Amino acid sequence: MQQEINNNFSKQDEFYMRRAIELAKNGTGWVNPNPLVGAVIVKDDRIIGEGWHRKYGELHAERDALSRCMEDTSGATIYVTLEPCCHHGKQPPCTEALVQAGISRVVIGSMDPNPLVSGKGVKYLEEHGIKVEGCVCNEECLAMNYVFFHYIRNKEPYVVMKTAQTLDGKIATYKGLSKWITGEQARENVHADRHRYAAIMVGVGTVIADNPMLDCRSTAISNPHNPVRIICDSRLRTPLDSRIVKSAGQIPTIIATCSTDSDRKSLYENAGCEVIITKESEQHVDLKELMNILGEKGIDSVILEGGGTLNFSALQAGIVNRVQTYIAPKIFGGVDSKTAVEGQGIANVDEAYRLRNKTVRLLGDDILIEGEL
Amino acid sequence: MQQEINNNFSKQDEFYMRRAIELAKNGTGWVNPNPLVGAVIVKDDRIIGEGWHRKYGELHAERDALSRCMEDTSGATIYVTLEPCCHHGKQPPCTEALVQAGISRVVIGSMDPNPLVSGKGVKYLEEHGIKVEGCVCNEECLAMNYVFFHYIRNKEPYVVMKTAQTLDGKIATYKGLSKWITGEQARENVHADRHRYAAIMVGVGTVIADNPMLDCRSTAISNPHNPVRIICDSRLRTPLDSRIVKSAGQIPTIIATCSTDSDRKSLYENAGCEVIITKESEQHVDLKELMNILGEKGIDSVILEGGGTLNFSALQAGIVNRVQTYIAPKIFGGVDSKTAVEGQGIANVDEAYRLRNKTVRLLGDDILIEGEL
Repeated sequence: MQQEINNNFSKQDEFYMRRAIELAKNGTGWVNPNPLVGAVIVKDDRIIGEGWHRKYGELHAERDALSRCMEDTSGATIYVTLEPCCHHGKQPPCTEALVQAGISRVVIGSMDPNPLVSGKGVKYLEEHGIKVEGCVCNEECLAMNYVFFHYIRNKEPYVVMKTAQTLDGKIATYKGLSKWITGEQARENVHADRHRYAAIMVGVGTVIADNPMLDCRSTAISNPHNPVRIICDSRLRTPLDSRIVKSAGQIPTIIATCSTDSDRKSLYENAGCEVIITKESEQHVDLKELMNILGEKGIDSVILEGGGTLNFSALQAGIVNRVQTYIAPKIFGGVDSKTAVEGQGIANVDEAYRLRNKTVRLLGDDILIEGEL
Repeated sequence: MQQEINNNFSKQDEFYMRRAIELAKNGTGWVNPNPLVGAVIVKDDRIIGEGWHRKYGELHAERDALSRCMEDTSGATIYVTLEPCCHHGKQPPCTEALVQAGISRVVIGSMDPNPLVSGKGVKYLEEHGIKVEGCVCNEECLAMNYVFFHYIRNKEPYVVMKTAQTLDGKIATYKGLSKWITGEQARENVHADRHRYAAIMVGVGTVIADNPMLDCRSTAISNPHNPVRIICDSRLRTPLDSRIVKSAGQIPTIIATCSTDSDRKSLYENAGCEVIITKESEQHVDLKELMNILGEKGIDSVILEGGGTLNFSALQAGIVNRVQTYIAPKIFGGVDSKTAVEGQGIANVDEAYRLRNKTVRLLGDDILIEGEL
């Protein structure tokens, strides 16, 4: 099979693939840095097994679906949102399991994005007499795994710059107050994203000013997990009695710094934090280097909840992949009120950072504008 | 007839009233400070005449519709979006014309908002043996005339605070550049509004910085008219060679000031400007007094395209009725880049100016968020 060549799919093929996509999404927040994958096994026009990759380190979708089949799978078709793997990782290759189960047809939603691996799963299956077809619902399958595809290709986390602001672009009143700009629905969405993405990053200024926890307090997700917390703190000014440092034993916490003060560093480490040292870039943590190190640590995604200075540095460093702007329909005003992106800014209109594939959603009273950079 | 009491309307009544509303909207931008009114005359289940108030000073909708009837109107029903007038203004009362035409039933969309007049048209018609019913499609009829209803009740113009900004709330780059933040569709909408509303107001800073014309350059409206241009200029700093002053002979132009320098004032007047003097309010033009004077002059609506200082003053003065925020999906950044609302700003989150009845529209790449204050 070659991607996109075989595309005489029936409505039924699309139906089953859509179900597989739905199942895959159940893994949101649990499988990083693995992809979301769902699988549906069909025999005689009936679904006889469903599965998805549930959690990092656990069964892949194909084996999960096979394990839940109550009847003989020989001669069955499996719909799987991503090309089955044929290499030994944390789990044995799925291709082998499909051959052993007597599956006769594999319908794929998207190919493995790793050019060194892509097509190998298909080849293995075809060599074992299995008919392979794809890619059904390719766009949806790709869209669902934008974090994974980015991470696999770039070995760096996918960075989402999130801001919550008023209609006139303020992230706080002139007195620095910001609780709460947006309403409950928007805040629930923010917390769902803290479950979805692997890490959250702020500047030390935010820690000093707001003393936040940066944990996930979603009420809609049962037992959500907390993102790794990352503080950009070039001179190690994070207060040792901040809520983040005091809870570093329970929730993974990284302090990114340019300081080489090893005594100070030890204090954070003793409190349970990990300290990452990068070179300096304009007197700040080198964000590009930091993303590289985070990628090596398996962190596939970061929500950036910076202040205006860190946000502009991140844009300049080219590490931002997505912008998420929550807008509350209210006005603070204030020539001294902080805005979401500050720093020097761009000089000419045509140098602006532009969003692609913009979406607009209403969340209660608030508006969420989201797009890729 | 009492408003809202008689409400056993048929689908047909609603159908004809919707047509009358559609016709009424043809008057947008032409009838200020009069209301938009449309009328449909129906006999034997057929429309035999349609009309609307086309232009300030010309026929009212009822007479316009009657004048276009090609057949006998006796025994016909007229659908009219606003209670027919029974007083002599620029035009003789419509109620008389309806009686003369032998109309047997009048269906009304909304009552006259002036408490001194409301119901008098209905009473006159009923006294002359005409059956009067209403209010059909009352919400739509009221919504269409929000400017008129505001103006009649408050004797001051309806003020729309319009801004065009980036996703991060900037109205210019740090260099002060702003051409163009939004795209063509958004700008066409801005120009359509310059036709819709009676006047446009800016601060003198905008005139000095951008030297704008503030005319209506809509390409979608044929032969649109220009709004009255108003410059808030407390110390009479408007350049005499600015494009606005130089075109004041062609497009009505008002300079609002606190200056009593009569020599300087004469220079503007000789150039064709009208100069309005208000008392000072925090070293600026008193906006509340200015609105009062504009209202007396028959200006029913103003688009405020202020900078951040004027916008905040207007909010503080309580003269803003609607906020219109065009957001382009791009980011300028810049701690020194101007934002839409500046001034001192509010101190605490719960003091924010809040929008009601918010709407969100996509205009090309841009987003228009609009709401009432």
